[in-house]
Amino acid sequence: MKIGFIGLGVMGRPMANHLIAAGHELFLHRVKDVSQHLVDAGGKALESAKAVAETSEIIILMLPDTPDVEAVLFGEEGVASGLSEKKLVIDMSSISPVATKNFAQRIGKLGASYVDAPVSGGEVGAKAGSLTIMVGASETDFERALPLFQLMGQNITRIGDVGDGQTAKVVNQVIVGLTIEAVAEGLSLAKAAGADPAKVREALMGGFASSRILEVHGERMIKETFDPGFRIRLHRKDIGLAMEAAKALELYLPHSASLQQLMNKALADGLGDKDHSALIKALS
Amino acid sequence: MKIGFIGLGVMGRPMANHLIAAGHELFLHRVKDVSQHLVDAGGKALESAKAVAETSEIIILMLPDTPDVEAVLFGEEGVASGLSEKKLVIDMSSISPVATKNFAQRIGKLGASYVDAPVSGGEVGAKAGSLTIMVGASETDFERALPLFQLMGQNITRIGDVGDGQTAKVVNQVIVGLTIEAVAEGLSLAKAAGADPAKVREALMGGFASSRILEVHGERMIKETFDPGFRIRLHRKDIGLAMEAAKALELYLPHSASLQQLMNKALADGLGDKDHSALIKALS
Repeated sequence: MKIGFIGLGVMGRPMANHLIAAGHELFLHRVKDVSQHLVDAGGKALESAKAVAETSEIIILMLPDTPDVEAVLFGEEGVASGLSEKKLVIDMSSISPVATKNFAQRIGKLGASYVDAPVSGGEVGAKAGSLTIMVGASETDFERALPLFQLMGQNITRIGDVGDGQTAKVVNQVIVGLTIEAVAEGLSLAKAAGADPAKVREALMGGFASSRILEVHGERMIKETFDPGFRIRLHRKDIGLAMEAAKALELYLPHSASLQQLMNKALADGLGDKDHSALIKALS
Repeated sequence: MKIGFIGLGVMGRPMANHLIAAGHELFLHRVKDVSQHLVDAGGKALESAKAVAETSEIIILMLPDTPDVEAVLFGEEGVASGLSEKKLVIDMSSISPVATKNFAQRIGKLGASYVDAPVSGGEVGAKAGSLTIMVGASETDFERALPLFQLMGQNITRIGDVGDGQTAKVVNQVIVGLTIEAVAEGLSLAKAAGADPAKVREALMGGFASSRILEVHGERMIKETFDPGFRIRLHRKDIGLAMEAAKALELYLPHSASLQQLMNKALADGLGDKDHSALIKALS
């Protein structure tokens, strides 16, 4: 199938590679040296997002943030200007659920379809083709996109209609961030009270306090191994999306709001490019 | 062995029962109608905590809060007045780690030993003999108490010296409470944004957001089944212990402090005797 892929970053490169390896014809934009191997493998570099949209049946985006997606879709020589009926845009970036619904409406008016499908699993999951993919789409569009998702991920769920994929991703980031903060406060208390945090973590692993975060990030906190992983700076962006949604929806999320401030403090302390488990250092 | 057991509440009764069933001679105090079956099974009711301490080699306490333990230990006709050398006091209540160290010192001056061994697992775990037991004790005292712990629990860890058991329990309650709050904010956001919280929970269960709380309490939040379980009122007591420790240790625990206020709000909203998963209602 002719597939457009825009956004060849740390995540996008291995994802595009899986599609090429499966025999798809890929049309790329903004190919830099670091993504030249995709062209060597058969991908075709085009001069604009518009050209990618004109040439491809399905156009996949994997971009850093909401304004990047908006610019690639609706900017000059953007995807929208090259779309025609029955084409499908799949945004796999992690961006605003509110903006996503707006983008989908505008794409829909051109006769094309829109799916949001943010992922979790990081660079490791992207390379292994084992990403978790949270999808917002009509049932028809989901079925159409599913064979491509299966080349990139393993745990693929249609949450609901357009926007719901982005909502699920934001919820994931809220729960992950707040659970890290929970473990950080617990282990800080253990240490300050003179108990061995490693022993406490071990004793708690079997009960209701147990979580993937206590297991993985709890160990990072105890050993103080803060190489990313997932950077506090990037996680702060996602909590920002939660705060934006909370404002739009008039929703009370006191701990998410406080978490955003703790992340600001972590950045002020020079921890922005450390793993998010380093949030424990923002408490001390 | 001659064992004293003081505190025959919802937890204490089944715990004492396991000791009698294993053939130990139990000496009880404050036996009410609801604990009469322990006397029928061979337990002996005595008129004071002092008499229990005089008669028993090991004295176990399972009481509601710090002041109760202090009164039973050091009040008139209390345990301390009946202790002699080589006796062992085991406090299985969940109380202040700071006060625990003080109590242990005072008991130690009488030539007796002190172990703190709070539990988690609730009434279900107490009845099944499957409690998690977090122990603060010298190695010698731990070895001496272990056969009794094995009659009441399964996951038994010596965290460290006296007080460390209580610290681990408080840390457990902090992490559990804050993880409940994390899941509550996440699922509230999902619902407000129009995504199906059940679908979101399902999609998140495989990844870093996964926890026992997302699994068990997340489902309670979605189905709005808030029968305890563990009451918000009791959990608030434990977060109060964390706040007391934070004050004594000059420790910054912003989310625990905020959780305490959310629990106050839940009580103001009449939710004090609901399961702690009902904290999600304090957000709306």
